[in-house]
Amino acid sequence: MKASRPKRRRAPAKAWAGRFEAPTADIVERFTASLPTDRRLYPHDIAGSVAHVRGLVRARLLSAREGRRLLAGLATVGRELDAGRFRFRASDEDIHMAIERRLTELVGPVGGKLHTGRSRNDQVATDLRLWLRAECRAMDAGLARLQSALRQVAARHADAILPGYTHLQRAQPVLLAHHLLAYHEMLARDRGRFRDARRRADELPLGAGALAGAGFRIDRAYVARLLGFRRVTANSLDAVGDRDGVAEFLAAAAITAVHLSRLAEELVLWSSDEFGFVRLPDAFATGSSMMPQKKNPDVAELVRGKTGRVVGALVALLTTLKGLPLAYNRDLQEDKPALFDAAATVRDGLDVLAAMLPALRFDTRRMAGAADGLLLATDVADLLVERRGMPFRQAHEVVGALVRHCVATGADLRTIDAATLHRFSRELTPDLVRGLTPSQSVARRDLVGGTAPRQVRRQLARAAREDVR
Amino acid sequence: MKASRPKRRRAPAKAWAGRFEAPTADIVERFTASLPTDRRLYPHDIAGSVAHVRGLVRARLLSAREGRRLLAGLATVGRELDAGRFRFRASDEDIHMAIERRLTELVGPVGGKLHTGRSRNDQVATDLRLWLRAECRAMDAGLARLQSALRQVAARHADAILPGYTHLQRAQPVLLAHHLLAYHEMLARDRGRFRDARRRADELPLGAGALAGAGFRIDRAYVARLLGFRRVTANSLDAVGDRDGVAEFLAAAAITAVHLSRLAEELVLWSSDEFGFVRLPDAFATGSSMMPQKKNPDVAELVRGKTGRVVGALVALLTTLKGLPLAYNRDLQEDKPALFDAAATVRDGLDVLAAMLPALRFDTRRMAGAADGLLLATDVADLLVERRGMPFRQAHEVVGALVRHCVATGADLRTIDAATLHRFSRELTPDLVRGLTPSQSVARRDLVGGTAPRQVRRQLARAAREDVR
Amino acid sequence: MKASRPKRRRAPAKAWAGRFEAPTADIVERFTASLPTDRRLYPHDIAGSVAHVRGLVRARLLSAREGRRLLAGLATVGRELDAGRFRFRASDEDIHMAIERRLTELVGPVGGKLHTGRSRNDQVATDLRLWLRAECRAMDAGLARLQSALRQVAARHADAILPGYTHLQRAQPVLLAHHLLAYHEMLARDRGRFRDARRRADELPLGAGALAGAGFRIDRAYVARLLGFRRVTANSLDAVGDRDGVAEFLAAAAITAVHLSRLAEELVLWSSDEFGFVRLPDAFATGSSMMPQKKNPDVAELVRGKTGRVVGALVALLTTLKGLPLAYNRDLQEDKPALFDAAATVRDGLDVLAAMLPALRFDTRRMAGAADGLLLATDVADLLVERRGMPFRQAHEVVGALVRHCVATGADLRTIDAATLHRFSRELTPDLVRGLTPSQSVARRDLVGGTAPRQVRRQLARAAREDVR
Amino acid sequence: MKASRPKRRRAPAKAWAGRFEAPTADIVERFTASLPTDRRLYPHDIAGSVAHVRGLVRARLLSAREGRRLLAGLATVGRELDAGRFRFRASDEDIHMAIERRLTELVGPVGGKLHTGRSRNDQVATDLRLWLRAECRAMDAGLARLQSALRQVAARHADAILPGYTHLQRAQPVLLAHHLLAYHEMLARDRGRFRDARRRADELPLGAGALAGAGFRIDRAYVARLLGFRRVTANSLDAVGDRDGVAEFLAAAAITAVHLSRLAEELVLWSSDEFGFVRLPDAFATGSSMMPQKKNPDVAELVRGKTGRVVGALVALLTTLKGLPLAYNRDLQEDKPALFDAAATVRDGLDVLAAMLPALRFDTRRMAGAADGLLLATDVADLLVERRGMPFRQAHEVVGALVRHCVATGADLRTIDAATLHRFSRELTPDLVRGLTPSQSVARRDLVGGTAPRQVRRQLARAAREDVR
Repeated sequence: MKASRPKRRRAPAKAWAGRFEAPTADIVERFTASLPTDRRLYPHDIAGSVAHVRGLVRARLLSAREGRRLLAGLATVGRELDAGRFRFRASDEDIHMAIERRLTELVGPVGGKLHTGRSRNDQVATDLRLWLRAECRAMDAGLARLQSALRQVAARHADAILPGYTHLQRAQPVLLAHHLLAYHEMLARDRGRFRDARRRADELPLGAGALAGAGFRIDRAYVARLLGFRRVTANSLDAVGDRDGVAEFLAAAAITAVHLSRLAEELVLWSSDEFGFVRLPDAFATGSSMMPQKKNPDVAELVRGKTGRVVGALVALLTTLKGLPLAYNRDLQEDKPALFDAAATVRDGLDVLAAMLPALRFDTRRMAGAADGLLLATDVADLLVERRGMPFRQAHEVVGALVRHCVATGADLRTIDAATLHRFSRELTPDLVRGLTPSQSVARRDLVGGTAPRQVRRQLARAAREDVR
Repeated sequence: MKASRPKRRRAPAKAWAGRFEAPTADIVERFTASLPTDRRLYPHDIAGSVAHVRGLVRARLLSAREGRRLLAGLATVGRELDAGRFRFRASDEDIHMAIERRLTELVGPVGGKLHTGRSRNDQVATDLRLWLRAECRAMDAGLARLQSALRQVAARHADAILPGYTHLQRAQPVLLAHHLLAYHEMLARDRGRFRDARRRADELPLGAGALAGAGFRIDRAYVARLLGFRRVTANSLDAVGDRDGVAEFLAAAAITAVHLSRLAEELVLWSSDEFGFVRLPDAFATGSSMMPQKKNPDVAELVRGKTGRVVGALVALLTTLKGLPLAYNRDLQEDKPALFDAAATVRDGLDVLAAMLPALRFDTRRMAGAADGLLLATDVADLLVERRGMPFRQAHEVVGALVRHCVATGADLRTIDAATLHRFSRELTPDLVRGLTPSQSVARRDLVGGTAPRQVRRQLARAAREDVR
Repeated sequence: MKASRPKRRRAPAKAWAGRFEAPTADIVERFTASLPTDRRLYPHDIAGSVAHVRGLVRARLLSAREGRRLLAGLATVGRELDAGRFRFRASDEDIHMAIERRLTELVGPVGGKLHTGRSRNDQVATDLRLWLRAECRAMDAGLARLQSALRQVAARHADAILPGYTHLQRAQPVLLAHHLLAYHEMLARDRGRFRDARRRADELPLGAGALAGAGFRIDRAYVARLLGFRRVTANSLDAVGDRDGVAEFLAAAAITAVHLSRLAEELVLWSSDEFGFVRLPDAFATGSSMMPQKKNPDVAELVRGKTGRVVGALVALLTTLKGLPLAYNRDLQEDKPALFDAAATVRDGLDVLAAMLPALRFDTRRMAGAADGLLLATDVADLLVERRGMPFRQAHEVVGALVRHCVATGADLRTIDAATLHRFSRELTPDLVRGLTPSQSVARRDLVGGTAPRQVRRQLARAAREDVR
Repeated sequence: MKASRPKRRRAPAKAWAGRFEAPTADIVERFTASLPTDRRLYPHDIAGSVAHVRGLVRARLLSAREGRRLLAGLATVGRELDAGRFRFRASDEDIHMAIERRLTELVGPVGGKLHTGRSRNDQVATDLRLWLRAECRAMDAGLARLQSALRQVAARHADAILPGYTHLQRAQPVLLAHHLLAYHEMLARDRGRFRDARRRADELPLGAGALAGAGFRIDRAYVARLLGFRRVTANSLDAVGDRDGVAEFLAAAAITAVHLSRLAEELVLWSSDEFGFVRLPDAFATGSSMMPQKKNPDVAELVRGKTGRVVGALVALLTTLKGLPLAYNRDLQEDKPALFDAAATVRDGLDVLAAMLPALRFDTRRMAGAADGLLLATDVADLLVERRGMPFRQAHEVVGALVRHCVATGADLRTIDAATLHRFSRELTPDLVRGLTPSQSVARRDLVGGTAPRQVRRQLARAAREDVR
């Protein structure tokens, strides 16, 4: 932005120009412009105006004929916008004024009656809630698609075993399906959060006027019904200054982004040479401009990296809101860039992962190989408890010493001879360690939520039921 | 922390010492210590262990007698902690190990059976959810108390009028009660968010083991019932690595903190000499070490300033979680400092505001004086619409020009002569402006959510019903 | 983004297509696209390539003739981009590949030699540092312009007195010029931070290759000189994975944004009816769509509100960087949206404030009126110390009680009779309070940095010297 | 905090009690208390008071005898605090008032003269800058110790080769020393940032008074010299409301924390079974309460996880500062918890890593094994450029196809027969691929900053010089 001297402007006057002697400085026009961001609200703005017109007719603030004329004009404006034929003017402050300006061109002076009993404050708040409601639904659908992809990939590998990790150290064998369904759970909670956010924001602000309530007795409940809102906002000062719906949406989006970053991290790890659990199809990998052999998991990296953007959007909004007195302040205009960007970022991440997951090739043999060996130590301790009645703490210590021996000597704990075992504990006999397998280990964890095949099948079935909801 | 050479340690061994040859370095002990933070979890840890013991008895992994012995021991440990008689040792890694260590001192080797089928991972997750459940309830109570204070102060000033502001410019007269109830609405949504967070986190993780599920068939639903959880977690890998409940709690807390910061900002403004709407009682103000005349709204300032702390806690957690692979990672230990600090900060803010609000003295005369004059311009425009059928846009322009005239000449819009009014519009006759008052303006806004006394009384009644819920 | 099935692509192949059998999925193309963001790097990319070509010629990896051909081609590409005639293709992954693709169209196979000894990793890092260097200078210029505006407005009101505030309570009289120059100080520190950020980032990454250093002995110092860098990066792994320069820039930008938010807050306060210290010219205010009388300080509000955006950008980057292993990861692509947006936001804020400040009209009479009265209490205490030798603590207490008396009775502390004064302290005689004025109070603060006119004139002179630097 | 009814207090009065009729409510005392946090400022507070006393003596506001008495008293207070013998009282608002209160107990009424010409506002600002100055030095020392550890470990493994990674895919062989020195570079920049922060904050605020400058002509330059400050602050309003030094410190700390998180991530990866590059000594690892075989890299995980805490502290401060009008506001009290916690967190992280790094055992054989094979593909392309004059883009494509062949057939690119090579390009002859080794690859990158042994030795030498600075 060049800091030029304010120029006199010849353009059509602002809606509020009556009280002003001098036009707005160009630099101010540019600095305060919200049209590039808020133009995407147009379908909601038109829907809101349609309902408002019907509310004005019902309140006899418009005649039926005026009402029809405005509705026809709004329909035309909507079609122009849909078709990309709408001509914005430099003097259009925002999408709301652009639509009203065009409407008045089309229908004449009656266009000046549209804003009766309405302020941009309650109008913007209404548009924003309509957008949020639609976006929460779209987010739910995106989450459901990724859940579905996870479930299907899980079902396809119902028997595959891989090491479960804690601290990125191999911990215990788990089913790949179990692992993937952990993300299904996270996304189910995400869906719940967006659902709650939508429900809580499901209130019509229109009628709150600038801040004190409209000066006319419009039937707000009627307007709310027309727009499909469950309730009307209960306090006009709150209604125009409230951005909770945006904050709650962004918080839910940030948590979702964190979930995706965890899945992405695992895909990066699994597709490394060192893990080698997953091979990326060419369609979902990219190469290097310098190194001919590279095949990189860029999609997963970007999903992970974009988490910052979503967390940043949440921080941006909370920082903007902090310390604002009632009711509306222009600072609130800053809600939309953060919101729109974060929503698109998360939805794109969901879509690209849903497309990529089914295309991954899992090296289940390599996974299984990595899930064998010292990961079975807990099972030995559990058997000492179960079959010998040894207190778990003692069993843990006995097996810990045994593991130390195995690490030092390279021995496999399943093939150590009886005498050596005996050195660690009299109770530690070969029958406890011989023939231990990852499959047995997995099968032992047969309680709700455990990784035993029986339990994982139940999880899969439940997931299938949930996905269609 | 001094980076000293790792020292050999003589202290009692760690629970996991079996596999290790050398003791932990002192600097590592200090760096990884969580006891100063997690010791406040002790009642939940004991409650969780009690339920776990009963689950082990039911699964016949403990005899009834062993169970009784452990329960008696746990009760003793709990009493010691309640009474501040518990002696922590340098070797206690965390509150969980401290309690188990002490229990074993009290009950002997059977103490080593407590951890059967349990890992610190699912144990910590359980304690944390118990804490969250209790804290969500406490937060709800704190929010309800502040709502109640707002409602009572509002009821006490049911007729007071002050200027409603947008852009911190006087906009339209509103009732003080209406203004205060806007915060009641915000806090109602906050309560909803904590309720949803609690409901979603209301699942028992115990039984998830380290990550793959316990190796014994413990009846998790039974343990959940004992602890009052509605459900058991459905996936063990998710259960031990999930901190959604903390993130959702912190997001709700951050939004609440932002609400409090807005109220605090208004209290700072209102108690300034320039606004002069509120006088702080001495008990809720502080002075200056240098300037003898100062009486400062420190409480409101600190409430506002502490918003940063809560937003920071949310960012801290989200940043920590970003990119962590499944299942448990030690990074997760960092959830608690942020959580505990943010919860205490918000609750203290609620409490101090609930104590301060009823003690404020509102200068209703000064408020009313500030709510008169050009704030009534919208009413004139509305009357042009209502009585003359003028399109609102035109009415807005006519009145805008009139306002400009008033500002330039210092005239009161209610006393301008007919001829002058006529210059702005033929329709603008003295009967439209004579006798306009803030009270009339307020009374005009008589639709749901509006500032008319009838509507505000309804809001008050609804608030009274909600507060007791 | 629609999650469609990956389609086979006919478009021109990627630079790294050799190793791949299948083309990139459309959804991946869209998800990984950086062109909309990084296209603004084009002048730096071309400058970097020009220097690289000259480095290759010097290293005899290109013949002089090849070099000339490439330089001519790059010049043509640059002109096409400058003129908006450049035709991007769907297959252009980013601005770097677009330029190389077009170059090869223009110059033939020799275009394939441009990337010798270079990777996109060091290329992007180089472009970014060139951008940062230019932007730091632009930011410095923007800061200097706002400093200059502050200084000129300060100079224009060299005698005006207003209340200085602490806790938003009137504290002591200060000169308006002194107040404005406080922001001059903040901006001077901001300039220092951007200067340090630029200096620290003033290193050439080119030659680092993909991560290990180029495979050819290119004279990096020569290339650095051509591009005006002071040094070459000292470690190739660091060079391609380092985004410190971006983080430091964003931190400096966030602190600047916070400074602007403080100034903006004051402008909002000062233009309120309650303060009434400033009148906004029409060219820098906007109106209301509903309330005809409104004149709103939107510019200041937006400057304040946009702080969130800049803090959010800093958080976004830090969150993205957290936990990334060496060297380059695709996550790093996310540095640019945050960086470009934050830089533009802060610069626009500087420009609009620099344009607005000189246009403000200060109501110095009203300011002076607000700076009189109990604000002089500290002076009375100081006089008790100075003329009576009373310990300050005691003087503070005496005057505190006197102030309480004034507040209770409405008395002016300068006109209280001797007998009454005597009640508070024998030392408190009328000569200490009679004739106290804000001007005297201001003049008393005559030490470096104080608000006495002599000191403020010095500050102004120093500021004038600094502005031209 | 319990929201109890405000109680009357009998405790000793506040320093500012004169103007107040009623004591502070208990809940307010608790809510506004800063003593638990700011008590660690005591040495700086005493140092500041000592210098202030000497300034007062020089300005003849204290007699030499009074000065000696106060200095003796301050020395006593300091000794009491050092020895832990200082008795705080419930009425001590903060450390500053506690010290003054105790001083007055010790020296009598002359204690009341200490605060002459001083306000808590400039006093706190001074203490904070003294703390920052010391902490910047301590941070520099901590960074230097970790640099030294990195350098020594690098020197110890001067010949070890490991795969360099981009996108966590093996990219090109690099020296382990080169890899470790990348962190040395990052930390060098961190040191620079703390140095710049210190330099910029190196100004004495004392003398700024409450906001307008002290009412007495104290020689601020003299006081600054006594305290070792380079300059005095130039504007009193700025001086008391400025927290830039804290923000800049926290930004530097956050970037440092991000660096540590990257190193920590690599240590976690390297100590996984899959990578196996590093073995953790027992003294720097911890075990599992359930799984006997586990040995976890908790230290690295916590270093990584604590990054959130430091980023959160930065966000907390910036959010708190946003939108505060001049000059001092009580919100600023919130600077210290964030600052102290973040500083300790980063310093502990530096110390524990500096202690751990030398204790790690690197499996250089395994590293070397992982650095062989397709990582050499870039070298083949470079040789096609160097020896055959092939344009790099073409060479990249040829080698890309060759790599695809190797992946499909499992062939080693160094042993493919001439005929097969010829199929990819006539220029591709066996002499270009035979005998390629990681060592050769590394040696090729022989330009400044490259991974060639000659270059890395230079880096080591430079690092050794820098460490001692």
